[in-house]
Amino acid sequence: MMKGVHYLVTVALLTLASTLAFAGDPSPLQDFCVAINNTNSVVFVNGKFCKDPLLTTADDFFISGLDIPGNTKNQLGLSVNLVNVDKLAGLNTLGISLARIDFAPNGLTPLHTHSRGTELLVVLEGTLLAGFVTSDPDNRFFTKTLNRGDVFVFPVGLIHFQFNIGETNAVAFSSLSSQNPGVITMANAIFGSNPPINPDVLIKAFQVYKNVVDYLQKIFHG
Amino acid sequence: MMKGVHYLVTVALLTLASTLAFAGDPSPLQDFCVAINNTNSVVFVNGKFCKDPLLTTADDFFISGLDIPGNTKNQLGLSVNLVNVDKLAGLNTLGISLARIDFAPNGLTPLHTHSRGTELLVVLEGTLLAGFVTSDPDNRFFTKTLNRGDVFVFPVGLIHFQFNIGETNAVAFSSLSSQNPGVITMANAIFGSNPPINPDVLIKAFQVYKNVVDYLQKIFHG
Amino acid sequence: MMKGVHYLVTVALLTLASTLAFAGDPSPLQDFCVAINNTNSVVFVNGKFCKDPLLTTADDFFISGLDIPGNTKNQLGLSVNLVNVDKLAGLNTLGISLARIDFAPNGLTPLHTHSRGTELLVVLEGTLLAGFVTSDPDNRFFTKTLNRGDVFVFPVGLIHFQFNIGETNAVAFSSLSSQNPGVITMANAIFGSNPPINPDVLIKAFQVYKNVVDYLQKIFHG
Amino acid sequence: MMKGVHYLVTVALLTLASTLAFAGDPSPLQDFCVAINNTNSVVFVNGKFCKDPLLTTADDFFISGLDIPGNTKNQLGLSVNLVNVDKLAGLNTLGISLARIDFAPNGLTPLHTHSRGTELLVVLEGTLLAGFVTSDPDNRFFTKTLNRGDVFVFPVGLIHFQFNIGETNAVAFSSLSSQNPGVITMANAIFGSNPPINPDVLIKAFQVYKNVVDYLQKIFHG
Amino acid sequence: MMKGVHYLVTVALLTLASTLAFAGDPSPLQDFCVAINNTNSVVFVNGKFCKDPLLTTADDFFISGLDIPGNTKNQLGLSVNLVNVDKLAGLNTLGISLARIDFAPNGLTPLHTHSRGTELLVVLEGTLLAGFVTSDPDNRFFTKTLNRGDVFVFPVGLIHFQFNIGETNAVAFSSLSSQNPGVITMANAIFGSNPPINPDVLIKAFQVYKNVVDYLQKIFHG
Amino acid sequence: MMKGVHYLVTVALLTLASTLAFAGDPSPLQDFCVAINNTNSVVFVNGKFCKDPLLTTADDFFISGLDIPGNTKNQLGLSVNLVNVDKLAGLNTLGISLARIDFAPNGLTPLHTHSRGTELLVVLEGTLLAGFVTSDPDNRFFTKTLNRGDVFVFPVGLIHFQFNIGETNAVAFSSLSSQNPGVITMANAIFGSNPPINPDVLIKAFQVYKNVVDYLQKIFHG
Repeated sequence: MMKGVHYLVTVALLTLASTLAFAGDPSPLQDFCVAINNTNSVVFVNGKFCKDPLLTTADDFFISGLDIPGNTKNQLGLSVNLVNVDKLAGLNTLGISLARIDFAPNGLTPLHTHSRGTELLVVLEGTLLAGFVTSDPDNRFFTKTLNRGDVFVFPVGLIHFQFNIGETNAVAFSSLSSQNPGVITMANAIFGSNPPINPDVLIKAFQVYKNVVDYLQKIFHG
Repeated sequence: MMKGVHYLVTVALLTLASTLAFAGDPSPLQDFCVAINNTNSVVFVNGKFCKDPLLTTADDFFISGLDIPGNTKNQLGLSVNLVNVDKLAGLNTLGISLARIDFAPNGLTPLHTHSRGTELLVVLEGTLLAGFVTSDPDNRFFTKTLNRGDVFVFPVGLIHFQFNIGETNAVAFSSLSSQNPGVITMANAIFGSNPPINPDVLIKAFQVYKNVVDYLQKIFHG
Repeated sequence: MMKGVHYLVTVALLTLASTLAFAGDPSPLQDFCVAINNTNSVVFVNGKFCKDPLLTTADDFFISGLDIPGNTKNQLGLSVNLVNVDKLAGLNTLGISLARIDFAPNGLTPLHTHSRGTELLVVLEGTLLAGFVTSDPDNRFFTKTLNRGDVFVFPVGLIHFQFNIGETNAVAFSSLSSQNPGVITMANAIFGSNPPINPDVLIKAFQVYKNVVDYLQKIFHG
Repeated sequence: MMKGVHYLVTVALLTLASTLAFAGDPSPLQDFCVAINNTNSVVFVNGKFCKDPLLTTADDFFISGLDIPGNTKNQLGLSVNLVNVDKLAGLNTLGISLARIDFAPNGLTPLHTHSRGTELLVVLEGTLLAGFVTSDPDNRFFTKTLNRGDVFVFPVGLIHFQFNIGETNAVAFSSLSSQNPGVITMANAIFGSNPPINPDVLIKAFQVYKNVVDYLQKIFHG
Repeated sequence: MMKGVHYLVTVALLTLASTLAFAGDPSPLQDFCVAINNTNSVVFVNGKFCKDPLLTTADDFFISGLDIPGNTKNQLGLSVNLVNVDKLAGLNTLGISLARIDFAPNGLTPLHTHSRGTELLVVLEGTLLAGFVTSDPDNRFFTKTLNRGDVFVFPVGLIHFQFNIGETNAVAFSSLSSQNPGVITMANAIFGSNPPINPDVLIKAFQVYKNVVDYLQKIFHG
Repeated sequence: MMKGVHYLVTVALLTLASTLAFAGDPSPLQDFCVAINNTNSVVFVNGKFCKDPLLTTADDFFISGLDIPGNTKNQLGLSVNLVNVDKLAGLNTLGISLARIDFAPNGLTPLHTHSRGTELLVVLEGTLLAGFVTSDPDNRFFTKTLNRGDVFVFPVGLIHFQFNIGETNAVAFSSLSSQNPGVITMANAIFGSNPPINPDVLIKAFQVYKNVVDYLQKIFHG
């Protein structure tokens, strides 16, 4: 059953994957450059290849479904629906993306970073405890309780989380300063990588016994 | 009474002013650089001066009030509450901002550009007609009807609008890819500048008679 | 006959189309990357694909003809010859372009923006009235009469124009801070888009009667 | 005694703190802009204020001591001597920094990220196991054993480590693509923040019992 | 008499000094940020401090005099009038500059680089031989004869020159992709630096006898 | 025999060729984008095409051999082994590169620039005299004697050199702020270009007699 943990986390965050971008996205060199999926191609570029602008339509800039609550019946009580360049091709070269996040009571976006994007969150419903930690050596923890209509900034690259501390579901929208901000969930990347990181490294890094590392790698590797 | 038009437009868009930023905001060189208002200073920099990071608190990254409907009892049936670096100091150097937009029935964000930011809009309530026009010489018009939960992209620098074509109020959130994306409302900038643009220029540019230009300058200059 | 208006405007500005770039063009990653036209290709990139550097010659960095006065016998009394990456392939990745502008007496570059480029103009002959308008809410109008040898800056993204107020022809060179700065002529984009913008939007945005909008859409749509 | 752990980690990584920068550092606008410490100032800028270029000397671009082995007699068996803009003022605006890293046998740079810099490491002595983990959802682990003269790349923002698996001391130089790449050590930021992150968040994020979190917060908070 | 050489070169290029910028200038974060000279200040920033935007006038974006031929009665037969951010404060943050170049017959812009800007030259009068050399190891020489109305691109950072091979004076305008592109004249920097470079370095670098180096250092140091 | 000079210089610097990049490299839009050599392709992009990320392995981020002294038995007493994107494909999009430099006694990296990268050098063995010259008009020469463990910064685009003034071999590592910083060796580019620069240009630029130019072109063209 523990094996299910990582799976559910993966499902919950799947849409965030291969995403996240930020203030440093290279600038556009034309009005737009709608991404195409060249699934048969063996070559790639920084960002995405684009479709012929003459074939572009309004639908390339459109996506629906952000009104639909996600399924939060998982270990984290969480659902993330990220509208990034993989889902909304029109975002290519434009340096922004958007996510709807649903939290069950006690739902959590576990500690993670976006390596290419600052996150700007607004609460639509419920009460969240939000926080981020600054870099070494101070590792200052900035935290705030957020209610409906409150906005909070999570600076690019810093470890952060949102936790539903209310008694009801919570909903938030987050915009991110990249077409593909990327998400690195601490627990997944550290204990659930593929293949697993050598236990000796984790034992020394976290100053824990081998059985704790074994337990965590079992949980998050799934 | 016509004089009131420009005034109301100004009120409605006041919060968008001196704002809007985009994919090309210079990248941060530290975790964060919270803006300060040096109101007595006679010097400025590209962006904002920052406060001492040791004095920074969670409140620098926080603002409330995006749950509150704006007052749309004005000529445009519009209210825009923009959370940019002027309102939320923690956004400085981070390349993103956010707006809540309220529309009365027939409410309109009139044709405008953001010179420094792509806009990514999500509809919370109501039905909007959204559109943007590409650059010369094609000037293609991309348009889409948006309902609750729909998302649409307005690429940086292109003229665009949102129009409430439903019978109820509409509400949307827009994120923008700059700490200060800037807004240029066509009618205001063209016919309501301070001082007014020489009528001969407008007459020739729009191929209209002088009385039409006089009329428009009277309305939008207020 | 009115239909001719838009056509002529289009002709006059055709060379400016799909052009103009700025301070934020992504930097080069090699000495040069001369653009190629992959006319049969179905894929594109941000900017342009480049030709094999070993096949590059001096001619890729060369173009002639900026000494030839353009034909200003059109509605605007204007001719623009823009040397951008579409005409001068060697400009690709290098963040700059150049235009020769000819004005008949009363000739006008009608109100327009360059979404990706600052414009730096120098007058070679004649007398121009130049101006630009800042963003909301101030919409300040900065204007200056320019004579032979005078230089003026039009900051990226702001609405601007040049008007020949002398009795003779005028000639100017403008350099722009992008390989493809882009041009958005207000009248064309607002009233001449393809398809036309819904008249209700224009009526409300500009506070005019429907017949004025009909008239303008007829003129600029052509 | 456990309290000592975090202290030592902090000492070892202190020089890495408030550092690390990358491919996206804003470009220089003059030959150089040597940083000054305006310790009495209450204002800051993105990056650093600079000294008068006329007062600049060769010493502003110079630092010594990278031949001196660091003291690795600490919990991690690690010493990091980072030459970033805080130590070498001449690096300001120039987008690069450098570190000497000493490892005792079994010495470890514990799992960490640089939010603003790619790391390019070369081994001078000894044998290191190096690795990094990609972002969600794949969390692929790339790892390699490195000997004298071997080079390895750690892409910006990804969690990575180096572990001395040889029987002797190891020494490496790392260059980083920012004047201030920043370092976020996972264990320190997650379990040693100031103030501590709410245990409930950590319990849920890592699926461990409260006593494990208590233990880790005690160790790394110190 | 030889001493005069360097002096004249310095005069001719003085206006190019502390200039030259390129495709990578950091982007603006507001409509404009007009440079101020804080002559009494002991601190500087990347680029320039700016004046209060409310005090900005059209004159900040204006300069005159590019119609006036420069004095070419010097060793190089050359005069350069560069309009960069030092002369035209409105260019600050906007990534572009402009120069008028006058050549006597046989006049020469000696081999030089712009470390921060691509140069886009248009010939107004006369006949120039223009050329640039690519980087190692190919060091390909691209050259072209340019007449009135011809345009040529000199990619950022590459060594280049323009030589008046006609029998009359020549005039050209060059735009550069930076507010401060910088100029490094080979002869001045190599043989005329202050203090001089150690002769042994120059002897070995150029494979010449000491007396040749002595001669060149005497000429260009002046 | 003199012909051999240029050849040897070319050999010594061959690995530096088509390389060197800096603070302005465009930022990555995904975790990594490992370069591929599309040797049969007729199209290129700014930077490099990338391989399928699913086919990427740790070896793409790895290279060995920086422990091996280069062969300095050549005219310059120099060997440069540059690890740039051409050699280490994993560096693509990541804005950094690294070189090992070996000097025989009196060995010299002759005067050169990196148009796209700042260089950060650390001495491993021996004693180097290092220096760089600022841009016009000051052409200030900053110089420093460097011993084992000393670090020196050479700002992007400025002419610089390193000279072994000790009695033994010297070794240094240099990191550069670009995936392809580029190198332009003054002597090679000025006197050894292909085809040669017109002697009249060189005679005038350096104020020397034709026979000196002939001699230098013979030496460096080889």
